[in-house]
Amino acid sequence: MGNEQNSVVQPLLTDLYQINMAYAYWKAGRIEDQAVFDLFFRKSPFSGEFTIFAGLSDCLKFLENFKYSESDIDYLKKTLPSHVEPDLYTYLANLTPKDIKIHAMQEGSIAFPRIPLIRVEGPLIVAQLLETTLLTLVNFASLMTTNAARYRIAVEAGPRRVQLLEFGLRRAQGPDGGLSASKYAYVGGFDGTSNVLAGKLFNIPVKGTHAHSYVMSFTGAEDLVNAEIKHKTEDYVEKKFYEKCLKWATKLAVHLKIMPDGPHDGELAAFASYAIAFPDEFLALIDTYDVSKSGILNFAAVAMALNDLGYRALGVRIDSGDLAYLSNIARETFESVSKEFSVEWFASLIIVASNDINEDTILSLNNQGHSIDVFGIGTHLVTCQKQPALGCVYKLVEINGNPKIKLSQDVEKVTMPGKKTVFRLYSNEGYALYDLLQRPDENPPEVNKRVLCRHPFQVS
Amino acid sequence: MGNEQNSVVQPLLTDLYQINMAYAYWKAGRIEDQAVFDLFFRKSPFSGEFTIFAGLSDCLKFLENFKYSESDIDYLKKTLPSHVEPDLYTYLANLTPKDIKIHAMQEGSIAFPRIPLIRVEGPLIVAQLLETTLLTLVNFASLMTTNAARYRIAVEAGPRRVQLLEFGLRRAQGPDGGLSASKYAYVGGFDGTSNVLAGKLFNIPVKGTHAHSYVMSFTGAEDLVNAEIKHKTEDYVEKKFYEKCLKWATKLAVHLKIMPDGPHDGELAAFASYAIAFPDEFLALIDTYDVSKSGILNFAAVAMALNDLGYRALGVRIDSGDLAYLSNIARETFESVSKEFSVEWFASLIIVASNDINEDTILSLNNQGHSIDVFGIGTHLVTCQKQPALGCVYKLVEINGNPKIKLSQDVEKVTMPGKKTVFRLYSNEGYALYDLLQRPDENPPEVNKRVLCRHPFQVS
Repeated sequence: MGNEQNSVVQPLLTDLYQINMAYAYWKAGRIEDQAVFDLFFRKSPFSGEFTIFAGLSDCLKFLENFKYSESDIDYLKKTLPSHVEPDLYTYLANLTPKDIKIHAMQEGSIAFPRIPLIRVEGPLIVAQLLETTLLTLVNFASLMTTNAARYRIAVEAGPRRVQLLEFGLRRAQGPDGGLSASKYAYVGGFDGTSNVLAGKLFNIPVKGTHAHSYVMSFTGAEDLVNAEIKHKTEDYVEKKFYEKCLKWATKLAVHLKIMPDGPHDGELAAFASYAIAFPDEFLALIDTYDVSKSGILNFAAVAMALNDLGYRALGVRIDSGDLAYLSNIARETFESVSKEFSVEWFASLIIVASNDINEDTILSLNNQGHSIDVFGIGTHLVTCQKQPALGCVYKLVEINGNPKIKLSQDVEKVTMPGKKTVFRLYSNEGYALYDLLQRPDENPPEVNKRVLCRHPFQVS
Repeated sequence: MGNEQNSVVQPLLTDLYQINMAYAYWKAGRIEDQAVFDLFFRKSPFSGEFTIFAGLSDCLKFLENFKYSESDIDYLKKTLPSHVEPDLYTYLANLTPKDIKIHAMQEGSIAFPRIPLIRVEGPLIVAQLLETTLLTLVNFASLMTTNAARYRIAVEAGPRRVQLLEFGLRRAQGPDGGLSASKYAYVGGFDGTSNVLAGKLFNIPVKGTHAHSYVMSFTGAEDLVNAEIKHKTEDYVEKKFYEKCLKWATKLAVHLKIMPDGPHDGELAAFASYAIAFPDEFLALIDTYDVSKSGILNFAAVAMALNDLGYRALGVRIDSGDLAYLSNIARETFESVSKEFSVEWFASLIIVASNDINEDTILSLNNQGHSIDVFGIGTHLVTCQKQPALGCVYKLVEINGNPKIKLSQDVEKVTMPGKKTVFRLYSNEGYALYDLLQRPDENPPEVNKRVLCRHPFQVS
């Protein structure tokens, strides 16, 4: 992944109360106090059993670059009460997180409730000032990665090997919501994104074809000013590519038993022009008018015309309607054309499906049976519609060596005091059994020795 | 609002297919073609009846700065197929949106389904290239603003005048998700945010107190190295402020009938130290241990000690438990202390409530009756949990003067072809009645003249 840092990730990307507390601690003479904070979540998202921890590299970049700028200090002077002592600003201007120690799970690990994802140790004031930004960076990254992984798991349970593409930028929560979504969808197991900037910044494969508007913008052959295409390997230029497509359309209509008034001329012209631009990557959106009466025939016609010129089309995208049914129609058509015209590769053309797909849609498509090779997933993925926030918290667990506990009438919210070491214990078969929390001064568990442990919040 | 532009808002913040289409159009010789696109939504969010249109200023900044950088062009050369003609890159490097005309509703307007929020007119290729970024900028901004306005409407229906603060940064969808949320919560009627960077960038009032960890970090008086505080107006320094607070705590415990083992010493020390730092702005979080057995007493003790020194406390924040009940307890305590010790302003101390508040919580608090003056709202507000995405679309409606329609088996998805002019018609009483769409060449509706109009998607 790229090394770019979002320019808004800076010390002031925090809640004001952190700075208020910094002043109150400073004023109380607590500059030397040492604290330990645990960053963890209490419940896995999406009613699920696991969370994938992500965002650590963003946190580390934030720490590396942590420095209040002059304009930050000026803004704070204007914003905090005028009676605040000026020395505070000198203190803040010189403050760095160099004395902060971070212990963390590896980014991309499977994580479980209440186990610290990150432990932050160091000066109380500095550790406190990091809270909001670390939470912001971990919460959405982990949520998105977990969401993406759940889609991956859902498609793996299906009838065929499927690629997953993230198509959500336009519906994401702001420009960077979209960028983060593209990045962490890839971390969570997606194969690519439509988001070009994410491709550039994070080196993620970018994918895309064309929109309905492209098809609609063509009324017929008259919109195709340039219809030339060179043969892929031979020294021949086809000057009337559209006519060639039209001939194939006529031939295929007979074979596929499609009524001559079904196929839309503008669509054929649009596909022909798109094929001229991308002869080696021809993938057409076939549902602008009607998949089975127009789109599939026009696609096949252009693909066969390309075939005559030495090119192999890639496939189709379907963005509406009954995706299971339409993908099966498309596959049957490809297989039938492949057989009739002896073009073997035609049977295995790619079928991309998009249109408001979520985890449940995929599970339902798995049950129905489908012929889809690639899912393009947008809104539900990038906004994590099922649960749009992960509830990581950042809790003080030790101060100057003394464990601290936050009591609560809600037992779920009681914190586990003290610094912790975590061991993930595996069975002989290599399955993770549970995560064991210990005090750092306890002996680590040993292989084949019994460990007595208790659930911290279940009284037996 | 500030004039800053998010650095990731740039031409590559788009879907790859836009660039593919640009090449295909370019290759088909359609550089001079003129198009009209409508940007609109089909359904108001949150099962509501209205949407507030926002994001326009971000769109205009995007257009002003639109230019592919050299590194963008390099990235595209690497990413698009190698057979793409090099002249395309020269074309893109020189491309500007100078020939694009934008018609839009005013930012902050109430908007309804299917009425164009923005009409984009100009060269087909350029107008197409703007699609994704404009949608990204409008969708979340409008969704957030609408959400914020709904909270404002919910509190206005309640028993008291209430302030609304946005506290959601840590749970937002990434750093900029958080920034956008702070900005558009303010646009939608919030009074301030906890997000300091949003305050700095957009000139929004920032608010905040302290966290539970601040209270927990104090065990007792021994953690208060410096307990001095100057009298607000007199030339007197109180050197033993904590002892003064302790005396008030003893006195108040009797008056409030609170058992002496209830109040937590560390909490009193924490409040005292916070008051020393913010004597004019003392607002304490009173639920770290127990609101009625500890927090309210310790707050009142410190507030009365401050009063002895000429300062007026601001109030309390409650972040857990039954907010209606606890706020009423707090208000009764304030009134009782006010009366007993003849400190009039004590009765009207501010009560801030936070903790996972959403629209429904507010409506329920309205019904129960409460004494809350300020709501701090986080997750549900900033992630728009009820519906985390608005579905604005960008549809081609005219090309080279010819209206275009997108047909669909789903009648909801059929587009309205052609360029439109919108009139909002008002009754004699000044109420908006409906939005009338016309062709630009039709005569505008006249006052007191009948207009015959039909719903575009309901057949009577």
